[in-house]
Amino acid sequence: MNRAEKRNPEKHSSFDQPIGIFDSGIGGLTVLKAIREEIPREDIVYFGDTARVPYGTKSKETITKFSIDNVKFLQSFDTKIVVVACNTASALGLGALKNQFAIPIIGVIEPGAKAALLSTKNGRIGVIGTKATIGSGSYEACLKKLDPSLKVFSQACPLFVPFVEEGWLDGEIISKVAQTYLEHLKSFKIDTLILGCTHYPLLTKMIQKAMGPKVKLVNSAQETAKEAKALLSRLKLANRRKDQQSMRFYVSDEPEQFRVLGERFLGQAIQSVAKVGDSFSGVSSKTPRIIKERVL
Amino acid sequence: MNRAEKRNPEKHSSFDQPIGIFDSGIGGLTVLKAIREEIPREDIVYFGDTARVPYGTKSKETITKFSIDNVKFLQSFDTKIVVVACNTASALGLGALKNQFAIPIIGVIEPGAKAALLSTKNGRIGVIGTKATIGSGSYEACLKKLDPSLKVFSQACPLFVPFVEEGWLDGEIISKVAQTYLEHLKSFKIDTLILGCTHYPLLTKMIQKAMGPKVKLVNSAQETAKEAKALLSRLKLANRRKDQQSMRFYVSDEPEQFRVLGERFLGQAIQSVAKVGDSFSGVSSKTPRIIKERVL
Repeated sequence: MNRAEKRNPEKHSSFDQPIGIFDSGIGGLTVLKAIREEIPREDIVYFGDTARVPYGTKSKETITKFSIDNVKFLQSFDTKIVVVACNTASALGLGALKNQFAIPIIGVIEPGAKAALLSTKNGRIGVIGTKATIGSGSYEACLKKLDPSLKVFSQACPLFVPFVEEGWLDGEIISKVAQTYLEHLKSFKIDTLILGCTHYPLLTKMIQKAMGPKVKLVNSAQETAKEAKALLSRLKLANRRKDQQSMRFYVSDEPEQFRVLGERFLGQAIQSVAKVGDSFSGVSSKTPRIIKERVL
Repeated sequence: MNRAEKRNPEKHSSFDQPIGIFDSGIGGLTVLKAIREEIPREDIVYFGDTARVPYGTKSKETITKFSIDNVKFLQSFDTKIVVVACNTASALGLGALKNQFAIPIIGVIEPGAKAALLSTKNGRIGVIGTKATIGSGSYEACLKKLDPSLKVFSQACPLFVPFVEEGWLDGEIISKVAQTYLEHLKSFKIDTLILGCTHYPLLTKMIQKAMGPKVKLVNSAQETAKEAKALLSRLKLANRRKDQQSMRFYVSDEPEQFRVLGERFLGQAIQSVAKVGDSFSGVSSKTPRIIKERVL
């Protein structure tokens, strides 16, 4: 039982409440997809902070503040747990979130580290991510905690996110960008590489090409979904319905852009995306209100 | 006399107040540099909204809100005029700023358009910028207003800003990115290309290579500085001192990163950068306070 569960013994959550998921933008949809496959009966509310994306170039203080706003927003849907589906927010904001909120919150770093540990044979693991994630040393700390004998090698790849957002997922240019970032990492003879950013699974082909076919690429999505399932089971909050879950999507800016690019991440149609108002843009501290609902 | 000047006849500004300049981040320093050369006796307060950068991928509504926050912050220094040193904020937020604030405010779009008109011989002008700037059609509208016979061709180049921020200003990869974006524009036989983003002057070499030596590249910095000088003269607010101006720098996140990259933009050392607090990160609507001052 974690601290959040302990701190609010009076509050009884119900199995039919939704799961909350947030990301700085669109990348967390890769985690949502895995959760949907792993626990298909759960209702999901997803929030993407597209007005303030990206997080990966910003400071711990700023990322933490943004993450707190996001959990507050998800709480307005009475979510039973929150999944931080963003490596940067998990690496830099998770501790503060767990301290501040009573609701159980899980991130993607520990699940990703566990997946890498299951994959490696030679004990040499690489990690790629945003500047903030790599700078935090979170993956390295988590891996060393799981097994102090592991050798961990890290590399920030700041241009990967803009390339994914631009939709340049293939071709000579992104191939050369990947080679440039990964050349040094390749020399360390790792056998497993953690894709430490939820955007990176869309660049799998290019990253695999740059690293060579022997390196196993792992991401947090699947393991995070398993952890969410285990947490709900432990809390006796797994949804007992037999019908398919509902999904609701909210963003702080550009809902239509999110919908179009989001379908690429999710691999299925997104019916509607709602835009959330002022409190995500620094104008007021009031509870977010939904100012535009687009049914497309 | 513009609307802002009219709206507040009781307020008497003094020549020794500073000029305020803001940008979404660091790019506006190219404008600050030109202003410093054009009107060296003025004190300057610069604000870069590095917690919420970039603006160029976001909506008009969000960009306008952020711009209003920024002017409010600059007003706390009792600035005599404000320069919006950001193409995206000028293209999408300037009208709202002029409506809301009594202080005279100028942007970079009109000066950039004027510079292009002075440069072109064949009347065929290209414009490159962020997705938001190009989507707004502001340069085209401004150029057509100056001369309806002009032919204007536009192209968004969303990866240019991340490349500059990453410091990849030269070499094969950025050269190919420039060629990819500019290939189509080149076919329109333009003789002048507006660099419609304050980051782009740092990619001059690559852009010139992609467009060929006959195309003249123009940016707004110089013309904006001239407009600021003319405005101060018209308002009788030009500083009468004989000593050099002071410069103060504020950001909403990562002051050290701003300082290091900022020196590349400014072409000179930056002594100190202060970080501004909560109101730029969506947590409260209180007047910004300076939470950390780094003297480096």
